[in-house]
Amino acid sequence: MPIKGLIFDAYGTLYDVHSVHAKTEELCPGKGDLITQIWRLKQLEYTWLQTSLQEYRDFTYLTQVSLEFALRAAGVEPSENITKPLFEKYLDLDPYPEAKEALGALKKRGGSQLAILSNGSTAMLSALVKNSGLDALLNATISVDGARKFKPHPDCYALIEKTLGLKNDEVMFVSSNGFDVAGAKHFGFKVAWIRRGGSTPLPPGPVGPAQIYRLLRGNPETLGYLQDYTVAALTDLVGLL
Amino acid sequence: MPIKGLIFDAYGTLYDVHSVHAKTEELCPGKGDLITQIWRLKQLEYTWLQTSLQEYRDFTYLTQVSLEFALRAAGVEPSENITKPLFEKYLDLDPYPEAKEALGALKKRGGSQLAILSNGSTAMLSALVKNSGLDALLNATISVDGARKFKPHPDCYALIEKTLGLKNDEVMFVSSNGFDVAGAKHFGFKVAWIRRGGSTPLPPGPVGPAQIYRLLRGNPETLGYLQDYTVAALTDLVGLL
Repeated sequence: MPIKGLIFDAYGTLYDVHSVHAKTEELCPGKGDLITQIWRLKQLEYTWLQTSLQEYRDFTYLTQVSLEFALRAAGVEPSENITKPLFEKYLDLDPYPEAKEALGALKKRGGSQLAILSNGSTAMLSALVKNSGLDALLNATISVDGARKFKPHPDCYALIEKTLGLKNDEVMFVSSNGFDVAGAKHFGFKVAWIRRGGSTPLPPGPVGPAQIYRLLRGNPETLGYLQDYTVAALTDLVGLL
Repeated sequence: MPIKGLIFDAYGTLYDVHSVHAKTEELCPGKGDLITQIWRLKQLEYTWLQTSLQEYRDFTYLTQVSLEFALRAAGVEPSENITKPLFEKYLDLDPYPEAKEALGALKKRGGSQLAILSNGSTAMLSALVKNSGLDALLNATISVDGARKFKPHPDCYALIEKTLGLKNDEVMFVSSNGFDVAGAKHFGFKVAWIRRGGSTPLPPGPVGPAQIYRLLRGNPETLGYLQDYTVAALTDLVGLL
């Protein structure tokens, strides 16, 4: 079947979650790296724990409480003058450098709907695509709020057909996150994994928080659901169609 | 209600999961710390991903594939001469130094059943309690195999009443793992959190894999389910009864 929809993960795939680093370092000098990485690791853990606990509190809530966790873990007492600007930066993350060009080329080519399917809450995603200007290039921005589950739960991926009317074999799903690749493949999509920095070998010397993050998230999961394609940048996608 | 059952988490609570470190360092010189920490982080991630994917592959499988992940992440090709002895060591983890004494004192005191409720597979747990001799002190060793879910899914904690006939308010659940504390409290048990090293401040200098692990697992989760008691060692439990 021809691909009729390219569906993108947002955080880590179109948007650089680590672009909160500079603001974190400014507010918590010397601890920007540690807090940024713990924040993101814990934020994802909390999505999975919510599903395990059979609860749903949205990504706005989980992003805020995981930030509190990360600050305390790093020995910083959470106060509004730190948490407010950091959460606001999360609504205005930097897109990866090639994101706009890649989406522009895919839109110009035509023939496929372009959309986001993200763990983000409706409110967070709406701010994010607007602030970055990617909203003009996308047909839809779909939040897992519609399923009240988090990826990789199958109900999340089922939102694609519900929202866009696309069958599984008409979808190419694009993500940098190993768990999301596994979830999308398990659900039955064609999957392109974008390898964000995972391929470079570890630098010599001590392994710090950023490397740990990269190793945990930037390598293929060994759960038995592997991607169909691996790309180095979003601009490589057009060549797969 | 009086407490009629003390239920212990196994990995990280009675048994030191990092006691695989020496063997890992011996087999993969210079990489023992990194591999051990990534292994344990990924092993837990995979339990939550299994629940999210609505699958159940047991802890034996997940422990093996997460080890493969960790070895590859650290640039080591998994081969049987590495994976076999490491998995075997996982069946013979060191109990924490005070575990035997604490269980012995609780057994001598009487009045409460003593049991393990663990993510471990039936086969892994059976080997573990036998190899360490803790089987002689426990009334039961309960695997989440009986629920085909992983903690913190409520079906796991429900195994306590099914197996031991104890009502929620008769149970004191003991764990070092924040997610397990949250799950047990959410389910309705009284919960004692054993703070394994989490209370010591970060040492100065670079933050390495062991510190990251300690920060992620050794601090209370901010999901709104806090323990009733905090203890520094298992031997402090008898004072709570």
